[in-house]
Amino acid sequence: MEKKLKKISIRSVKRLPLYYSILKECEEREFISATELARRLNAVPIQVRKDLAMTGAIGQPKLGFKVKELIAILEEFLGWNNASDAFLIGAGNLGRALINYRDFKTKGLNIVAAFDNDPEKINTEIDGCKILPIKKISSLTQRLNVRIAVLTTPGQYAQKTAEILTTAGVTAIWNFTPVKLNVAKHIVVEDVRLASSLSVLTSKLHKQLNT
Amino acid sequence: MEKKLKKISIRSVKRLPLYYSILKECEEREFISATELARRLNAVPIQVRKDLAMTGAIGQPKLGFKVKELIAILEEFLGWNNASDAFLIGAGNLGRALINYRDFKTKGLNIVAAFDNDPEKINTEIDGCKILPIKKISSLTQRLNVRIAVLTTPGQYAQKTAEILTTAGVTAIWNFTPVKLNVAKHIVVEDVRLASSLSVLTSKLHKQLNT
Repeated sequence: MEKKLKKISIRSVKRLPLYYSILKECEEREFISATELARRLNAVPIQVRKDLAMTGAIGQPKLGFKVKELIAILEEFLGWNNASDAFLIGAGNLGRALINYRDFKTKGLNIVAAFDNDPEKINTEIDGCKILPIKKISSLTQRLNVRIAVLTTPGQYAQKTAEILTTAGVTAIWNFTPVKLNVAKHIVVEDVRLASSLSVLTSKLHKQLNT
Repeated sequence: MEKKLKKISIRSVKRLPLYYSILKECEEREFISATELARRLNAVPIQVRKDLAMTGAIGQPKLGFKVKELIAILEEFLGWNNASDAFLIGAGNLGRALINYRDFKTKGLNIVAAFDNDPEKINTEIDGCKILPIKKISSLTQRLNVRIAVLTTPGQYAQKTAEILTTAGVTAIWNFTPVKLNVAKHIVVEDVRLASSLSVLTSKLHKQLNT
């Protein structure tokens, strides 16, 4: 028999952590309904039901979903119960902030080492995470079989670093630099542009203040 | 004569910080062409020219844009030369990381105080930023005329906090919580969902690894 593969939409995947966060807040309860989840997220119940159905979760009539069970299902589905090792490249302000933000570990990402070019940073530690010289990226990526990199270098080094990483075997880059990376099609890149997001906020605010 | 107001697209606003970051990297040069900016961002030159025209920047034939001038124009356009005061609500791991990430100050956002409920955190400082009790948000927002809030509370307090903030006069919320905030239409909300972004990355990676 052919294995059924449900088509997963990126939008649904993005909403799963939102449900998860609500569930963790009421972990002591036995049940939660799709209606309540929807209400707490200002979403519509049918969407919540569809998203959760995608993960294989099954609710009980009139009671809803078992909270603990649904938490476990989401952790499994998102790979959060089995964090992948990752390297962080660029231990500047943002890189350091991300290393300090421990919550990634519970969300599938375990930053095992950071890399930087600054001799004053090399061999120091941030929150238990060692900073190593950039030139060691390639050999360590291969040796430790690391597949995920968090890219927080200055923009001018982003493309070059991405090439070193992907040549060494990295297949997923969480890109916090402002550069649109030019990589092979099989490489997964997810951009986070905090400065762009902030610009949208302030531009909307100023536009509003001028009217 | 009627004042001309150019229509600004959110997509263009999001790209301006990317140009800015390239410009800062080659600040010592006199000129940069739209073609080079495009190449370095893996974008197309026509888009770069359109985006920059929107800001009022004028390039010189065959030479391109004066780097220092364009930097100043972008800073002015994005309001980065005149940072707005902001409060941060929720001094957990993410909140602390954002306070530590000083670069926001050069990008229009000056976090002047943080608020939290944890008695152990209250009256301590993070990187020179004082942590105050939540109950003071309302009076201080009004007294200091703060218009921007960075929201990093746990999800369950997000909506309530947003209501306190907007009632006190905040008109722009940079929302790092997983909650879709329900606020009046004139309030600007910009969501940053790091956990969702990370889920997309790892889901794509695992899907890829399974094939």
